[in-house]
Amino acid sequence: MEISRASERAQEYSNEKGKWFCGFAYNEVRGLGYEKGIHRRDPSNIILVGEKYYVWYTKSVGPYNTLKNGDVYGKTSPKDYAEIYYATSMDAINWVEEGCAITRGESGAYDERTVCTPNILVCEDMYYLVYQTMQQGEFSGTNMCISMAKSTSPTGPFVKMKEPILVPTNYTGLFQDTPVDNYNSGIFTGVAQEPCLICYKERYYLYYKCAIQQDNVKCAGIDSRWGVAIADAIEGPYTPCEYNPITNSGSETLLWKYQNGIVALLNRDGPEKDTIQYAEDGVEFDIMSHLDNTPLGGGVFQAEDIVWSPLAGLQWGLCHCNEQMSTWNYLMRFDIDRRSKPYKIPTCYAYNV
Amino acid sequence: MEISRASERAQEYSNEKGKWFCGFAYNEVRGLGYEKGIHRRDPSNIILVGEKYYVWYTKSVGPYNTLKNGDVYGKTSPKDYAEIYYATSMDAINWVEEGCAITRGESGAYDERTVCTPNILVCEDMYYLVYQTMQQGEFSGTNMCISMAKSTSPTGPFVKMKEPILVPTNYTGLFQDTPVDNYNSGIFTGVAQEPCLICYKERYYLYYKCAIQQDNVKCAGIDSRWGVAIADAIEGPYTPCEYNPITNSGSETLLWKYQNGIVALLNRDGPEKDTIQYAEDGVEFDIMSHLDNTPLGGGVFQAEDIVWSPLAGLQWGLCHCNEQMSTWNYLMRFDIDRRSKPYKIPTCYAYNV
Repeated sequence: MEISRASERAQEYSNEKGKWFCGFAYNEVRGLGYEKGIHRRDPSNIILVGEKYYVWYTKSVGPYNTLKNGDVYGKTSPKDYAEIYYATSMDAINWVEEGCAITRGESGAYDERTVCTPNILVCEDMYYLVYQTMQQGEFSGTNMCISMAKSTSPTGPFVKMKEPILVPTNYTGLFQDTPVDNYNSGIFTGVAQEPCLICYKERYYLYYKCAIQQDNVKCAGIDSRWGVAIADAIEGPYTPCEYNPITNSGSETLLWKYQNGIVALLNRDGPEKDTIQYAEDGVEFDIMSHLDNTPLGGGVFQAEDIVWSPLAGLQWGLCHCNEQMSTWNYLMRFDIDRRSKPYKIPTCYAYNV
Repeated sequence: MEISRASERAQEYSNEKGKWFCGFAYNEVRGLGYEKGIHRRDPSNIILVGEKYYVWYTKSVGPYNTLKNGDVYGKTSPKDYAEIYYATSMDAINWVEEGCAITRGESGAYDERTVCTPNILVCEDMYYLVYQTMQQGEFSGTNMCISMAKSTSPTGPFVKMKEPILVPTNYTGLFQDTPVDNYNSGIFTGVAQEPCLICYKERYYLYYKCAIQQDNVKCAGIDSRWGVAIADAIEGPYTPCEYNPITNSGSETLLWKYQNGIVALLNRDGPEKDTIQYAEDGVEFDIMSHLDNTPLGGGVFQAEDIVWSPLAGLQWGLCHCNEQMSTWNYLMRFDIDRRSKPYKIPTCYAYNV
């Protein structure tokens, strides 16, 4: 006897495909929680050094407006006129803000206006921060670059590189997201945000977001896609992948390694928002599961060995409550919700097998 | 030059597939909104008769507990010891509760304990209500049957049929969800809830829910699937489809016709929750889109001609805020949110075409 197509899919969920599903639980953290007058957001991945957890994040002070009065020098976002701070914790719940890791640059520097949205990669005992930077001018994604700083210690000092490592095509610089002469990738080149750097197959994959932010042109949320730029050495040069964009959805980048490939959690924006996707080559992503209640701006704990399960790299992390939820952005902890178990066909529910 | 698989999918969303996406907006209604001490939930589809909209729904009075004290005669749910009421409106916002359409049966009748969760089908100038019924005994889904009543007028009186039209296999009756002798469908046969009756290809398709409600055995929410039973005449007999279950997810049934097939909105429960699915034959459902913020217990307005667009049958309706959101269940209006437009690739975003 035949079974329905839906029942065939149920069998897939009960086997391999079920491993890609999870729920999320959210809890407050102490030390990085709500604080009137302060924005904290965009936590990096979390690393364990010795007995301490470390996290980096965007911090800015005071209110902002959204260019309503046409003042291009006014603060327009919690990420504007921001700096990168870091915090440590012994238990991943109680955090201590240790201080500033990356300050804004001097007047005229490529990072004079803001530094924000950090991520961390430890490589050969060096600590590399990647983050967004902006020179003075009208605040918008299109003026954002991705920059890098390194240190021999997680506590710093971090030494900035002389130039950003990834800049949009309309920037007065060297970077081109794709070879513009033979592939007009248009507005996708205009932004480089939310970096996530992964050492993968002995090269360096710098994932980043390109949010076009046209007026709700699609199924859900703003129009956002990701690209990747690849380098043989961690300090670059980074060459944008010819397949960019490599997603059609997703806000802040969140990726981790699994087996021979890369797993991505795409949140908030686009027709494929709230999905887990997998690319065996780090570039060609396929949808593996649809989730809900996904973290915003999440950074995940970097465990030593995260290849045993697709979601092992997503066990817990920090994320932010952003301006849509709170006047003052702040950080929270998320965990995979174990009450949302992988799909199982109940034994009493007999298929015709 | 190649484009990424994600960009190929983006092209699908920008064409045919984008028609299956939407958002939802929710607004209060007057007359059926929050009222302390009263539960109103599970609105039927909404029909227009003359200049008036009609809706039927579950109504019950007073608090309930969830069998905590072991009293099998105590009210255990807003759907327990309920009756079916109806309301009318000239504008679909301001509603007037007109009275009771279906009362509980006399002691010993098949519907002595509760009548709830109605749906409506107009067929050859007759009005048919289908709904859940329960005799006395421990309140649970497994004791639920689906029953029918008819009237020459939407205002009634509705005449009940002598027997339920669909009963679970463990019921002392004639119905079997699937031929048990050669296909042990097990617990799926144990429930018949949330009916939705559609006249389709000159036969009658009675969709219903089977919620197993095991303790969170799957990716999201309780374990819930749908079946369909088909009859040549509206009053039956209804024969369960051999392909049952025909979904692996979804709480309250919500279906409508589109072109030659049936569209279903699966909400809240299961790995395929929050999807729109389509079956060209009314049975074999494929996922067409993933949505969020989907209505609970929704009933949709039955327009004359809803074949011009996949979601034309979902333009607006009523749904409920249930016990997870409010102590007292009440009805709300939902509309497709037109700010969530179908996915479009911005013209400035050039694929290699």
